[in-house]
Amino acid sequence: MSTSTLAARLGTRLPLIQAPMAGAQGSALALAVGAAGGLGSLPAAMLTPAALRAELQTLHASGLPCNVNFFAHRPPEPDPAREAAWRQALAPYYAEYGLDQEAIPTGPGRRPFDAEAAALLAEFRPRVVSFHFGLPAPELLALIKSWGAFVLSTATTVREALWLEAHGADAIIAQGLEAGGHRGHFLPPGRPTAGTIHPGDSEPREPGRQGGYGPNIDLSEQLGIFALLPQVVAAVRLPVIAAGGIADAAGVRAAMALGAAGVQIGTAYLCSDEALTRPLHRAALQSEAARHTQLTNCFTGGVARGIVNRVMRELGPISAAAPAFPLATHAIGPLRAAAEQAGSTDFTPLWSGQNASGCKSAPAAQITRELAEGLR
Amino acid sequence: MSTSTLAARLGTRLPLIQAPMAGAQGSALALAVGAAGGLGSLPAAMLTPAALRAELQTLHASGLPCNVNFFAHRPPEPDPAREAAWRQALAPYYAEYGLDQEAIPTGPGRRPFDAEAAALLAEFRPRVVSFHFGLPAPELLALIKSWGAFVLSTATTVREALWLEAHGADAIIAQGLEAGGHRGHFLPPGRPTAGTIHPGDSEPREPGRQGGYGPNIDLSEQLGIFALLPQVVAAVRLPVIAAGGIADAAGVRAAMALGAAGVQIGTAYLCSDEALTRPLHRAALQSEAARHTQLTNCFTGGVARGIVNRVMRELGPISAAAPAFPLATHAIGPLRAAAEQAGSTDFTPLWSGQNASGCKSAPAAQITRELAEGLR
Repeated sequence: MSTSTLAARLGTRLPLIQAPMAGAQGSALALAVGAAGGLGSLPAAMLTPAALRAELQTLHASGLPCNVNFFAHRPPEPDPAREAAWRQALAPYYAEYGLDQEAIPTGPGRRPFDAEAAALLAEFRPRVVSFHFGLPAPELLALIKSWGAFVLSTATTVREALWLEAHGADAIIAQGLEAGGHRGHFLPPGRPTAGTIHPGDSEPREPGRQGGYGPNIDLSEQLGIFALLPQVVAAVRLPVIAAGGIADAAGVRAAMALGAAGVQIGTAYLCSDEALTRPLHRAALQSEAARHTQLTNCFTGGVARGIVNRVMRELGPISAAAPAFPLATHAIGPLRAAAEQAGSTDFTPLWSGQNASGCKSAPAAQITRELAEGLR
Repeated sequence: MSTSTLAARLGTRLPLIQAPMAGAQGSALALAVGAAGGLGSLPAAMLTPAALRAELQTLHASGLPCNVNFFAHRPPEPDPAREAAWRQALAPYYAEYGLDQEAIPTGPGRRPFDAEAAALLAEFRPRVVSFHFGLPAPELLALIKSWGAFVLSTATTVREALWLEAHGADAIIAQGLEAGGHRGHFLPPGRPTAGTIHPGDSEPREPGRQGGYGPNIDLSEQLGIFALLPQVVAAVRLPVIAAGGIADAAGVRAAMALGAAGVQIGTAYLCSDEALTRPLHRAALQSEAARHTQLTNCFTGGVARGIVNRVMRELGPISAAAPAFPLATHAIGPLRAAAEQAGSTDFTPLWSGQNASGCKSAPAAQITRELAEGLR
């Protein structure tokens, strides 16, 4: 697929998607990118139905195409023992900040896409809908497609890309290991290994969706975008959108050279004027600290890339005690708030990709125009 | 630096280096690549002085420029307790194959570059000399440079690139996380982390060279080439050569778009006619198994990327018991030999990068010409 074809499907001038970044942006960033010719994205996972409705109204009123993004994880069974172990691991920090552990809520911190969200979406019929952690249930997917929405989802392996193609995605976002925030990873590693090769083992298998991680997280199949992208492009017929590590026009050019039909870019927008990224996070992104990111499950239970900080160093970056995604979300919240109050990012998820060199304090339209130079 | 300038410095027509791959190739591959316009490399780390002399004579007689590669690790102190723990971990496998554990030698399995090797090299004065794990002692580096050799070394982080520039390298090989075989990683992770930023901390620090790894291996600063390459290019004045994940002309084109002055490619040559890669390894590289590689220290004690196999699954991929590089080399040798005898790669280091899609049974000259299309 040529890049102009992908843009036509997205309804935009440019095959360039601003990555949805829950907690760091809303409709303002999406509109700014959309006005500059890219596809703006609205991350819906952390919004209440009322807030989502308000954002969808704003976007709809603009007349710009836009992408609404949801998590499609399968909510995990609560695991009281693991929850208790995690609270115990955090107990010294609660004590340090004088927080009452009993007052901290439990339960999931992110909603998966469900019938209620689908019904709300149906009122606004966004041009593009994207998912992280696989795809929603077939009947919900069918509903979305009924108004002609173009459906994106994220693959972190060739096997995931084949699974998404077989299950109804219209384009694949190939997410390299470099990417910031949550990995879209949703199929457990397969078992074709040298010495004992099972030829059929690389094919998509049911059950596909696996939003939460168990305590034994296996990231060994996660690839750098340089290795992932061409292998996904070779394996699927769908257009492939490159994500992870792209910070500037040269990065866009390189992704297109590797066979991408378009690009999705997140970190480079985190310091834009329209992002909601907080000052401490912005400062970290524009410092030397951003050179050192890790994949961690300390903040939500899901594996996500952020700049290394105290909680990642002391309890992680991957902790077997942290509850499965998204059950770990609440436990760290009060610590984050208390620490930030004191000017510290010790407990803040400083989401960032491995290449924060594109971060600048500038209008998102300018960032979009500069990135788009790589598409010429 | 333009690509033609780098080629001029390498003495070749193309700014394309065949990566040195100890154990999988000798002068035959280097000569084939050299004749096709690239820079062939001779891996010297596993050669006896007599074998190295013979290979250097062959290369010298060809009149082609060539790169001779050495490891510059600091030999670790033997650690009998760790050695014993590792032998104990391997004991069930020795028993399985009826091997006499007492008969297996200990000691280092790879020689670092030393005065003897330097003296031998001085007789032949190769055009290019490259190092893994930093650089050799200053007096040995000065000797090599005295005949005008162009010196390359590998960086896996921006800090390592700055260290190499400050210590006399003429060009930097930026090795992405995707690369197969041993990582050139030689500086321990620094400590600029969010919340506690030490501005000077990203600068090169002595002592720089750290060939062996301790039991606590920290790979968290290792970046995908898409993130590493542009950040290294921005940080140093030296030409930067991209390595890791490059499998075809599109990959070469992408690396050049990201600012590389040239490329170094290994995995794509592993199945070439001139490589010494064994049939079981070739078969694994051209199978689905090659989609799943990991970084492991089970084979040498150093961290290297290979296709997942039994010993990596059962004892690793990273084992705290494995002795520091290169002390783990001998323990696994007899197991590898016995298993291969039975047609199994359970104990074979199946070195491969994350993108083995370029592997083909073809003359190295053809592979070189196809890769070089990406340089046009």
